[in-house]
Amino acid sequence: MERGGFVVVNGKGARRLRAGHPWVYGSDVVEERGEAGDAVTVRDGRGTTLGTAFYNPQSTIRIRLVSREPVEVDDGWFRERIDRAVAYRETLGIDGDSLRLVHAEADGLPGLVVDRYGDVLVAQVGTAAVERHLEAVVEALVEGIAPAGVLLRGDTAARGREGLAREDRTLYGEVPQSVVVREGSVRFRVDLRGGQKTGSFLDQRENHLLAGRLARGRTLDVFSYAGGFGLHAAWRSESVEFVDASGPALDTARQNAALNGLENVTFTRANAFNLLRERSDAGESYDTVILDPPAFAKTRREVGKALRAYKEINLRAMKLLAPGGHLITCSCSFHLSREEFEETLRRSAADAGAVMRVLEWRGQGKDHPELLTVPETRYLKCAVLQKT
Amino acid sequence: MERGGFVVVNGKGARRLRAGHPWVYGSDVVEERGEAGDAVTVRDGRGTTLGTAFYNPQSTIRIRLVSREPVEVDDGWFRERIDRAVAYRETLGIDGDSLRLVHAEADGLPGLVVDRYGDVLVAQVGTAAVERHLEAVVEALVEGIAPAGVLLRGDTAARGREGLAREDRTLYGEVPQSVVVREGSVRFRVDLRGGQKTGSFLDQRENHLLAGRLARGRTLDVFSYAGGFGLHAAWRSESVEFVDASGPALDTARQNAALNGLENVTFTRANAFNLLRERSDAGESYDTVILDPPAFAKTRREVGKALRAYKEINLRAMKLLAPGGHLITCSCSFHLSREEFEETLRRSAADAGAVMRVLEWRGQGKDHPELLTVPETRYLKCAVLQKT
Repeated sequence: MERGGFVVVNGKGARRLRAGHPWVYGSDVVEERGEAGDAVTVRDGRGTTLGTAFYNPQSTIRIRLVSREPVEVDDGWFRERIDRAVAYRETLGIDGDSLRLVHAEADGLPGLVVDRYGDVLVAQVGTAAVERHLEAVVEALVEGIAPAGVLLRGDTAARGREGLAREDRTLYGEVPQSVVVREGSVRFRVDLRGGQKTGSFLDQRENHLLAGRLARGRTLDVFSYAGGFGLHAAWRSESVEFVDASGPALDTARQNAALNGLENVTFTRANAFNLLRERSDAGESYDTVILDPPAFAKTRREVGKALRAYKEINLRAMKLLAPGGHLITCSCSFHLSREEFEETLRRSAADAGAVMRVLEWRGQGKDHPELLTVPETRYLKCAVLQKT
Repeated sequence: MERGGFVVVNGKGARRLRAGHPWVYGSDVVEERGEAGDAVTVRDGRGTTLGTAFYNPQSTIRIRLVSREPVEVDDGWFRERIDRAVAYRETLGIDGDSLRLVHAEADGLPGLVVDRYGDVLVAQVGTAAVERHLEAVVEALVEGIAPAGVLLRGDTAARGREGLAREDRTLYGEVPQSVVVREGSVRFRVDLRGGQKTGSFLDQRENHLLAGRLARGRTLDVFSYAGGFGLHAAWRSESVEFVDASGPALDTARQNAALNGLENVTFTRANAFNLLRERSDAGESYDTVILDPPAFAKTRREVGKALRAYKEINLRAMKLLAPGGHLITCSCSFHLSREEFEETLRRSAADAGAVMRVLEWRGQGKDHPELLTVPETRYLKCAVLQKT
C-alpha cells in the first residue's frame, strides 16, 4: 500500500534493513514522500520493496521498519501487535504484578513503551505513528488488560525529537500518584508521576529476584536508589546497608523497607566512590555486594571515563568481599559493550588480587526483549561473580 | 619455600600472572630449577615473589600458578583444595546425582578433573604435580564423597604432553563398565570406560534442564549424541526426533529413551547439514530445535570454516521454526568467542528473514566454574532464542 507515501533508501540503508535492523537514518534516504506518522513503503534503488516502516521527516531516524512485507498499518494492525506483545508476556511466568507489556522495536512497535504497575498502565509514546493511532492503542490495552487507568508520560526526549507535545496525560480511567506493587515476595511503592523512567526499574526484576536467592550475611547495596536489590537481599541477609547519594531515593528505600516490615536494614547517604574506598581502606568485609550504578557512559565519547569509574567501584567491591561472597555488578550503559564491561571486571579482579568465579551473565528481564539483530534492544549487563 | 625449585619469568610472564592468569609458557621463563611435578616459587626479574606454581620442564605450559603466596604444596594442601571444590558444589543445589567435582585451574588444581557419576568417581590427571600426589587426592575424594569406586581415565592428550602414562586404572573400590545416573527427572546410562570426555556431557546439565522447561510441540534434537537434550525435551514435547550421524550414539539415545519409558521419540541417522537443508526445503516446521554440535573449530585456524558451518545450521534451524518456537543453539568451540558466535547467529537470522528474540545467553554448568581472569575456563556458549 502506498497511501502513506514511500521512501527509497541507498545501498547502506538497504543493507542495514536486510541485516535485520529496523532503522534507516535520513542520510541514507534517497527519495521520500509522506508525512510524520505515515506508514511508508520502503524500496531500494532498484525498486525492490523492503517492507513497511514508520516515517518521520523530522527525525534523524527517518524510518523504522515494522514489517518486511507491504502491510496496511491501521488500528487493527496496532491491536494485533499489542495483543501479540501481551500474549508473549503471559508465557513468561512472571512472579509479580508489574512488568513491561510493550517494548518498542523489540515488539515490532517502534516508539511505544507500556509498563504495567499493578492495575495501572504507564505508556510512553515516542513516534508520530504511534501518536496518530493512540486511541486504538489505548483501546487495545484496555481490552487486553482491563486496567484501572492509563497514564501517558510525556517527559521523554524521544517526543521532542519527533515533534510531539511533552506533557503527562491520563488516557483512561483513574491514575493515582503512586501504587504499591509486588515483585516476588517484595512490595514497592512506585511513584507513577515523579519517578525515573516510567517510575521504576522493571528491567532488573529477574536480577532482583536472583539477589534475593544469593544474598547472605552482611550485604552492601551500592547505588541502591529505591531499594530494588537490597529489599530482596534483606530476606536472607543478616543486614543490608543501602547506599545512595540521593536523599529522596533513600527516603523511598526506607519507606519500602518499612512496607516489607524489614528491620535488618540501614541507610547511608554517601558518594559511592568515597564510601567504597573508605570501607575498603578500613578493612571491612561483606558477604554480598551489589553495584547497580546509573549509566556512567551516556554517549560513546564518555566510555573511557566510564570504564575507569566501573573499574574503580568493582575493584573496591572485590576487595570488600569475604571468600565465598557474591558480587552482583551491573552496567546499564548502552554505549559500553558487554565485552568492554567484562574486560573492566577482569582488570578490577587482577588489581584486587581476587580470584573471581563467573556464575552468570545476565541482562534485562525477558519482558524487555532483546532482538538478535538489533543491538539497541540490549543495554543492561549484569555479572554475578563469586570470590573464591 | 624453595625445596621444589624456582622459576624466574620475564616481563610478559609476570604481567600475565599479575593479570590473574595462572599459565606461563616456556618462552617466558628466564631461569628455572626443578623437576616435573615440583611446586616451585615464581619470581620476576627483580626478585619479587609472584607465587607458587606447578612446574613441568617437559610442558610448553611451563608453570601453572596455584597461589599468589609462597605455600607448601603437600598432601594437606591438596586435601584442602579438594575439600573446598567439593564444598562449593554443595552450595549449588544441583538436581541430579552427577556433576563435576573438580575442574582443574578453575578450582585451583591445575590438571585435575574429577566427575561424579552416581556413586562412582572418574578422574583425569593431566599434570605431573597432581600425579605425584595422586594417593592423597584419592584419599581426600574417598573421605569427602565415600564413592564405591574411583576410575582414572588415562586416555587424554594432556597426559602425553606432561609425559604421563596413558592407561585407565581403578584407583579405589569397584568401577563397573557403566552406571545409570539421574539429571533432573531424566535417567541416563553412562559408559564410564568408553564414552566421550569422562563419559558424558555434564557441562550441559543446566541447559538440558532448560530444554526440559522450554520444549513443546514438535522437537528436533540435532547432533543428539546420547540424547542429553532430547530426553529432557521429550517430557513436554509432542514428539522428539533425535538426529545424529553416529549409529552407536543413536543406539545409546534409544536405550536411554527406553530407560525413561518415552514413546514419543524417533531416531534418525543422518548428516545434520543434509537433514536440516532437506527439511527446510520441504517446508517442515518445528516448535523446538536444539543444535548442540561437536566443536567445529578445534584450533584457531579452523574458525573461519567453523563460522560458515555454524551459520548454515542455525540459518536452517531458524527457517524451520514456527512463530513462537524456541532455538537452543550451542557452540563448545573454545576458539570461537561468544561475540563471533553471536555475530554468526545474527547473520543466520538476517538470511533466514527471521526476527529472533534473545531470551538468554548461557554457558557451562556452575560445577564447571569459569574464572573471570582465565578465558580458557570458558568454552561452552548456549543461546536461547525465540522466533517472533
